[in-house]
Amino acid sequence: MNKNTLVNSKLVCVALNDKAQLAALDSTFNEAPYKKPPTQPVLYYKPRNTWNVDGAEIEWAKDMDGNDVDTMVVGASLGVVIGKETCRVSQADALNYVEGYTVVGDYSLPEETYYRPDIKGKCQDTTAPVGPAIVAADKVTNPDALSVTVSVNGEVKSELALANLERSIAELISTISHIMTLQAGEIIAVGFAGDRVPVAKGDKVEAAIEGVGTLRNTLGGA
Amino acid sequence: MNKNTLVNSKLVCVALNDKAQLAALDSTFNEAPYKKPPTQPVLYYKPRNTWNVDGAEIEWAKDMDGNDVDTMVVGASLGVVIGKETCRVSQADALNYVEGYTVVGDYSLPEETYYRPDIKGKCQDTTAPVGPAIVAADKVTNPDALSVTVSVNGEVKSELALANLERSIAELISTISHIMTLQAGEIIAVGFAGDRVPVAKGDKVEAAIEGVGTLRNTLGGA
Repeated sequence: MNKNTLVNSKLVCVALNDKAQLAALDSTFNEAPYKKPPTQPVLYYKPRNTWNVDGAEIEWAKDMDGNDVDTMVVGASLGVVIGKETCRVSQADALNYVEGYTVVGDYSLPEETYYRPDIKGKCQDTTAPVGPAIVAADKVTNPDALSVTVSVNGEVKSELALANLERSIAELISTISHIMTLQAGEIIAVGFAGDRVPVAKGDKVEAAIEGVGTLRNTLGGA
Repeated sequence: MNKNTLVNSKLVCVALNDKAQLAALDSTFNEAPYKKPPTQPVLYYKPRNTWNVDGAEIEWAKDMDGNDVDTMVVGASLGVVIGKETCRVSQADALNYVEGYTVVGDYSLPEETYYRPDIKGKCQDTTAPVGPAIVAADKVTNPDALSVTVSVNGEVKSELALANLERSIAELISTISHIMTLQAGEIIAVGFAGDRVPVAKGDKVEAAIEGVGTLRNTLGGA
């Protein structure tokens, strides 16, 4: 873990929040064992060993035998930084608990199946850079109208308009705060483009949100 | 969160590590979508808002509408406390990274299905008491030979001999350290009896491991 992390105690990410991804998975959702789409947001954590910062190298992941994995992927999200204790707040009140916004990168192994709680793929060391800074909430007038782009070696590979999220920022804060109390400095990554972007050793990645910042990282292992 | 927590930065729990539970689920494992039993340990986190201490009240959980849930369950595990940075260690060397042992309680909502990454059920505030203390590793000669009992209002409801874990303590430390680097003070709850114990408001619960300690908590909401 990088000690300069902007995260305090918790980085919780929302999976399956891209409407296009949900539509593409629709037939899978209707198979066993669930037989319906998720009724609640699907959450995962990036634990402390993953936290990293703008400008830092992302370690190339190794498999269980200690050999370099073949493939890694990256996604990026708006990061909502909580400003004070947040417990069971309404959607209408939710944005009053936000201190500011930042950019969250999520480097991982490709997911084999959307069913599996993918701790191994998501929790590799240094794979969650956050930054470059926290932009105060009053500088961002409509966060749900922002777009997140991911570029690799200067070429845009993914773009997600947050207007295409299944659940809005206020809805997510409200729902998550009914599951667990959030504290100041904890961060919610509200949603990633369904198609993660493949990366290679040595790639330079930029995750950018206009008005929030550009998070730059390089893949290690080259 | 209780500020006297014994946990530093991470409490990772191992699910599905009771041989009897795995045997009972065998036919389910062979259905879609996996069609085989888990090949790696199944992990989940108890995040900071869940951390609690010996003697403290466990809050009765509420549903998404703010009403008390009908049922909660409890399990208990030996907690392995990491003593120094642990990255890609061998099974043979793994126990040298252990500072000591403690007891971990895991209060949760009943699981609807073993497939679902059950963030909502596992992450309710105050549901992970740890304690009463950390017993130094050199005081515990064979941790894999210990038994964990859960008693409710003085009556033993569950007992799990760690000899019946599918994966030993050393194997788990080794495997998890190949997925994520562990730091001093982080705790692994190595396994729970497959059948969690139902509890009611006001119940007094004791989770006990001979030579390690007895963790006492009371359910709130009565």
